Amino acid sequence: MVTVAQAEKIVMAQLKSYGHELVPFQNALNRVLSEDIVTDRDLPPFNRATMDGIAVSHKAIADGIFTFHIKATQTAGDEPVGVDDADICIEIMTGAALHPSVDTVIPYEALEIRNKLAAITADGTRKGQNIHYKGADKRQGDIVAAAGQTVTPAIMGLAASVGKAELLVQKLPRVVVISSGDELVDVVDTPEPYQIRRSNNYTVKAALANHGIKADMLHIPDEAAITEIQIGQCLQNYDVILLSGGISMGKFDYIPKALEALGVEKLFHKVLQRPGKPFWFGRHAEGPLVFAFPGNPVATFMCLHRYFLLWLDAALGLPAKKPVYAALGTDFKFQPALQYFLQVTLNFDEQGRQIATPIEGNGSGDFANLADTEAFIELPMERSDFKKGEVFRVWKF
Amino acid sequence: MVTVAQAEKIVMAQLKSYGHELVPFQNALNRVLSEDIVTDRDLPPFNRATMDGIAVSHKAIADGIFTFHIKATQTAGDEPVGVDDADICIEIMTGAALHPSVDTVIPYEALEIRNKLAAITADGTRKGQNIHYKGADKRQGDIVAAAGQTVTPAIMGLAASVGKAELLVQKLPRVVVISSGDELVDVVDTPEPYQIRRSNNYTVKAALANHGIKADMLHIPDEAAITEIQIGQCLQNYDVILLSGGISMGKFDYIPKALEALGVEKLFHKVLQRPGKPFWFGRHAEGPLVFAFPGNPVATFMCLHRYFLLWLDAALGLPAKKPVYAALGTDFKFQPALQYFLQVTLNFDEQGRQIATPIEGNGSGDFANLADTEAFIELPMERSDFKKGEVFRVWKF
Repeated sequence: MVTVAQAEKIVMAQLKSYGHELVPFQNALNRVLSEDIVTDRDLPPFNRATMDGIAVSHKAIADGIFTFHIKATQTAGDEPVGVDDADICIEIMTGAALHPSVDTVIPYEALEIRNKLAAITADGTRKGQNIHYKGADKRQGDIVAAAGQTVTPAIMGLAASVGKAELLVQKLPRVVVISSGDELVDVVDTPEPYQIRRSNNYTVKAALANHGIKADMLHIPDEAAITEIQIGQCLQNYDVILLSGGISMGKFDYIPKALEALGVEKLFHKVLQRPGKPFWFGRHAEGPLVFAFPGNPVATFMCLHRYFLLWLDAALGLPAKKPVYAALGTDFKFQPALQYFLQVTLNFDEQGRQIATPIEGNGSGDFANLADTEAFIELPMERSDFKKGEVFRVWKF
Repeated sequence: MVTVAQAEKIVMAQLKSYGHELVPFQNALNRVLSEDIVTDRDLPPFNRATMDGIAVSHKAIADGIFTFHIKATQTAGDEPVGVDDADICIEIMTGAALHPSVDTVIPYEALEIRNKLAAITADGTRKGQNIHYKGADKRQGDIVAAAGQTVTPAIMGLAASVGKAELLVQKLPRVVVISSGDELVDVVDTPEPYQIRRSNNYTVKAALANHGIKADMLHIPDEAAITEIQIGQCLQNYDVILLSGGISMGKFDYIPKALEALGVEKLFHKVLQRPGKPFWFGRHAEGPLVFAFPGNPVATFMCLHRYFLLWLDAALGLPAKKPVYAALGTDFKFQPALQYFLQVTLNFDEQGRQIATPIEGNGSGDFANLADTEAFIELPMERSDFKKGEVFRVWKF
């Protein structure tokens, strides 16, 4: 039996890279970069007008010129047009690239334009106004997003702007979600009074999908030989096996025996926590990891978030997520000497403090409760009395 | 010119349902339910053993019987086996359905089993122990998830467990993201020194993808007739048009004229905010909405989160998201009489308080900055001096 902290440490020691792959940048959303994204040009790449109006040389204004002949109209995407005389200006549109001979943009609001003559009607023209300068945001060769960052919508746009049509990203581990047990029937079937429908595997698959993992699913019947063959195949074809149930040491749990026979080394079994005490974790010599969650759906859900997703981020090279804390919204008691993961809803008070309100439902086994809550708050096992206002770490799901 | 609050109110008044559709439940993740999910049986559907051991009638123990003949072994999914005599027990596995003749499960740890005889070795057996009672979580006909809830991984599992292989969900509005301007070239092209690559549209499309919307993209050249034809087609084929740029009143902005010619009514133009002051919002008589965001990528990104996603949730019938607050991590000054959306990173201190640390970069136009921040904090326009520790609303992206 290990503590939550020990279990976390053992899981987090099992990190390896699953390699890299080049994907079209539009498919890279939410993937982890394996390369830096570097600007191919300054950003902006030219002195860019930020208002519609006229572009002039500020020296002309300093010399007392306030009326300008419009030589040309230049819109965004046009080749820049220069001015050769002091009283010449270019009518310019937002986004246009300024010619080196102009350095100030005067907006329409500060102008009167008639017969190709633009007269400045407002005071206080400042040299360089209404220009977003070349390189003001980034210099050519600057890193705009670094290896190890997740590709966010903002980074998608940055990749596009620097011409990175393909991005090198971390490969994702191949994951299979295994359910087992002859008591489980398919969603479309009508169960006998003593049977239930498979559901846990769909929850796990969906939670993984929300974290970018397309997991396969497999159901294994309660039969020793088939169990060993199928788990053996999974160990060859997947990097991670997620099991839900079937791992206790009851007479008809074929999975522990199959794992042992196939050379999966147990790294721990049982964690001082509720839910999820029977959590089993192991590793095959050739790399595959086995997270065997207890059959209780809430336990599976908690362990998935508390251990597997933490491991996944680290395996992909992401920095550890910043811890999220919340204050208990009500007093709470929990006697057993176990780390307790209490289902809560979260909201912010107007002091910016996050409040966790326990929704206990029918205890840790009440899966239906998860539909109405949004996080687990982790209550330390050394204590049994928890007071409103005390702050603990929360795990959002 | 409207305030942020007025703009929000005008946008949020444009709600309509886009209808409903039946989808395979596995495809319903993150969609909004249009129907309640109701249990077809009690949950659990039978008195369920939660430990491996033996099942007995507690009356026998009360009568002084501590050794039981094992009549049969019943595992999860087996038809329940009853006991006919007081000193008879069933060896039972976790998940098995208890026969009405037994009411107590004694785990292996409290037993010594030899030659088909199970002797209780521990004190304090409690009637009903280690049983998850039929209907303890939900009664047949109870609502486990209600219309208007988002289908979370937990709700996926609940749907599976009650046999809902298909779910009725809200249809999503059809959205097109339009970029315009001849200065914009494709990601794979090498721009001329006065051109830039399209990028904003990819950011918007990716942000929408993270909210479940598969948007189409369209680029419109700077040509009046083509602009009108293409926007006209979009008004027929989409529920929402998102424009980025091209909406200012410069000489070569064909889009405002096209929108007017096509009968899109302006509901507001310009909001007292930075970034995003030139934000334009309108509606076509036949329903389609036009969100015309300013060309500045940060402005587009902010308006998308502050207005469009808020509108989207409401249009889909979701309750308003609970506001998120954070305390400023540093003093901050902003003079103009505009609501300022400052880019920040977020973290929790150990008091459970969310702290927003401003990352100003090169001002509101610095798109590269968005890669390193995670929210906008909204600073009221009535003030210009903001102190460390003051709490304001934040908009996570």
